[in-house]
Amino acid sequence: MSAEAIIITIGNELTSGLIADTNSAEMSLMLAELGIVTIRHETVDDHVERIAAALRRAAGEAAVVLVAGGLGPTEDDVTREALALVLGRSLELHAESLRQIEALFAARGYVMSPANRRQALCPAGAEPLANPVGTAPGIAASVGGARVFVVPGVPREMRHLMGLHVLPRLADAAGGEAVVYRTAHAFGAGESVIGEKLADLMGRSSNPLVGTTACDGIIAVRITARGADRAGAAALAERTLEEVRRRLGPIVFGIDDQTLAGAVVEALGARRQTMAVAESCTGGWLGKLLVDVPGASGVLAGGVISYANAVKEALLGVEPDLLAACGAVSEPVAAAMAQGVRRRLGVDYALAITGVAGPAGGTAAKPVGLVYTALAWAEGQTVRRHQFPGDRQGIRLRAALTALNMLRLHLMES
Amino acid sequence: MSAEAIIITIGNELTSGLIADTNSAEMSLMLAELGIVTIRHETVDDHVERIAAALRRAAGEAAVVLVAGGLGPTEDDVTREALALVLGRSLELHAESLRQIEALFAARGYVMSPANRRQALCPAGAEPLANPVGTAPGIAASVGGARVFVVPGVPREMRHLMGLHVLPRLADAAGGEAVVYRTAHAFGAGESVIGEKLADLMGRSSNPLVGTTACDGIIAVRITARGADRAGAAALAERTLEEVRRRLGPIVFGIDDQTLAGAVVEALGARRQTMAVAESCTGGWLGKLLVDVPGASGVLAGGVISYANAVKEALLGVEPDLLAACGAVSEPVAAAMAQGVRRRLGVDYALAITGVAGPAGGTAAKPVGLVYTALAWAEGQTVRRHQFPGDRQGIRLRAALTALNMLRLHLMES
Repeated sequence: MSAEAIIITIGNELTSGLIADTNSAEMSLMLAELGIVTIRHETVDDHVERIAAALRRAAGEAAVVLVAGGLGPTEDDVTREALALVLGRSLELHAESLRQIEALFAARGYVMSPANRRQALCPAGAEPLANPVGTAPGIAASVGGARVFVVPGVPREMRHLMGLHVLPRLADAAGGEAVVYRTAHAFGAGESVIGEKLADLMGRSSNPLVGTTACDGIIAVRITARGADRAGAAALAERTLEEVRRRLGPIVFGIDDQTLAGAVVEALGARRQTMAVAESCTGGWLGKLLVDVPGASGVLAGGVISYANAVKEALLGVEPDLLAACGAVSEPVAAAMAQGVRRRLGVDYALAITGVAGPAGGTAAKPVGLVYTALAWAEGQTVRRHQFPGDRQGIRLRAALTALNMLRLHLMES
Repeated sequence: MSAEAIIITIGNELTSGLIADTNSAEMSLMLAELGIVTIRHETVDDHVERIAAALRRAAGEAAVVLVAGGLGPTEDDVTREALALVLGRSLELHAESLRQIEALFAARGYVMSPANRRQALCPAGAEPLANPVGTAPGIAASVGGARVFVVPGVPREMRHLMGLHVLPRLADAAGGEAVVYRTAHAFGAGESVIGEKLADLMGRSSNPLVGTTACDGIIAVRITARGADRAGAAALAERTLEEVRRRLGPIVFGIDDQTLAGAVVEALGARRQTMAVAESCTGGWLGKLLVDVPGASGVLAGGVISYANAVKEALLGVEPDLLAACGAVSEPVAAAMAQGVRRRLGVDYALAITGVAGPAGGTAAKPVGLVYTALAWAEGQTVRRHQFPGDRQGIRLRAALTALNMLRLHLMES
């Protein structure tokens, strides 16, 4: 039986619904890597007694309790006080923590405000966890038999302290069973079609567990494998992953953390080829997705955000007559944008996007959601017409992903 | 005193972290519209005793308990059983529910599987809530003094049943009190500095409630105001909002849903002026943020993603000698990028960004996180040097936001 955990996230911005809690899910996945099963998430408002009650409750139920949030410098950050209440100890100023906070402010060239001294407070008998990426140190404590770890609510700092302090200390807490998650990402087919191809693998309470979720046209096929040890679980997950790849074929673009842009950068890099982009309605989103990938500089020269027609003419050499005759959102203009940026930047491949993202600007002939994506290379070009669902953001993201997938499939075939 | 609510969401896919729970946040916002304050979210795995325990706990603490999920047709959907356990009653087949489920399958041309009969089960003494958009009816029940409503976990069905059954029945639960949320967004000062300026407003249990959260350098000041009616709560929120603006001054860039890019687009639009961008390490993110704003086409001509030096020379006219002498990440190159794109696109203002986003490419002289942001206009230019914390994404987003804020402040002053 593996160890069980309860995750508590703190903040009025969460309980009020103004912000959706993503830390709990991320932390559960991290724990699963150690074979620790999360049985409950709790989100409590900035209320010291209620936070203390949640801590006591969780410590009575689970061997591991993770807490995220309420470590900020302001009056409404009371997680430190709540933990002190539960431990029945007072808060003490931790000199080393204070020194690190002061150093961080100095490094950033800011003057530290007295309020930040609160962040150096830690309940007597608990252990401060150094935070190299922010001003809120974490806290490790023992409540009853349970091991309690408190980390900041800022996702970036949460991840950093989980990796630096919490997960290493919990490596031993995992019971006999190990859990391994793998994910195959597919683009270019609906969730139901994929579901049919994997129907027999998606039997509910079997091991491995196979499930799908769809987001912005990307279908994630999630595999959960359990085993007596990590190696066994990993092997089972790997076999299932291979079977999923075999059944779905080229629509699978990446595994686990790989993105569509990452797959394109990797494929171009392997061929020592280069690319550029020309974007109208996406306004730079396509370039942003490519530059998200470390090492993109090896393949991406850059591009043009040709939002106004004048820019399509001036920087991409699109003919004014063409724009007048067909309109900016048209197949020939998409092709001219792609060929234009390819020639100007002297790259092997270019992607171009032009469309109507809305909410305004749609017509009967060219409704909101109409998008043309173009791929150009020295010997040829392809242009595709799409009618995407969703709002301004959804249409634009789908357009950028679709353009990336055009190039990915072209590289697989050529 | 307004009624308090606890929201319970159910499912292994949530506790395992494979899917982030968005229902809780949505449901909290719906309740707030009625003046009902959510004090806790709980997410429980598909475990009948644990769900029952969460239900008892919540009913003992809050007047309203909303439950989402675990109403599916399969063995692991046990919310009905858990509620029956808590009520001490048995599950009974509800004929009308069964008829509606069968009708839904018929309408969709599917054969109903026997498993779906489970979805017509309801604890004796509880009331089934018809579900016109899915096969899982909701349930209304009373546990102790608390009013409990169970809805499906599929977001579309949750929304439908909340609107159709739950919110109308809760309209009276608000206890005459209304809650209004407002948010002021600030950029250019740390959370602790802002916290000090608002310290007396941030007293924990006062009305209005004022709290801050920080993300990517943007500080959100959240105001929660309660009143006898909506108008009264709105007036209190508005007064508090004005006080926050007065104390924080020009660092407040937007209210509620307004973004930093939105503020820039609005300010330029009011002046009938135009802008363009030149991006290196951000790779189009700055342009993307601007085009996120509906109506950006009125002020944004476009820009250049000058990721490679060759593009800085070819499309922006940056002198090769300058690049050779100072390097791409330098003050003069940032200025040349901004002036170059401004002239080429014939706009009033141009923003440029060049920096080291990492993870690789950092040196002692130019470490990861070093970013120059430049603003150019006809009569002059400003360049600022920054050392941003965080990873590749964090550094780049901070760079894009900082550039937007340079232009925003310039427009306020000129």
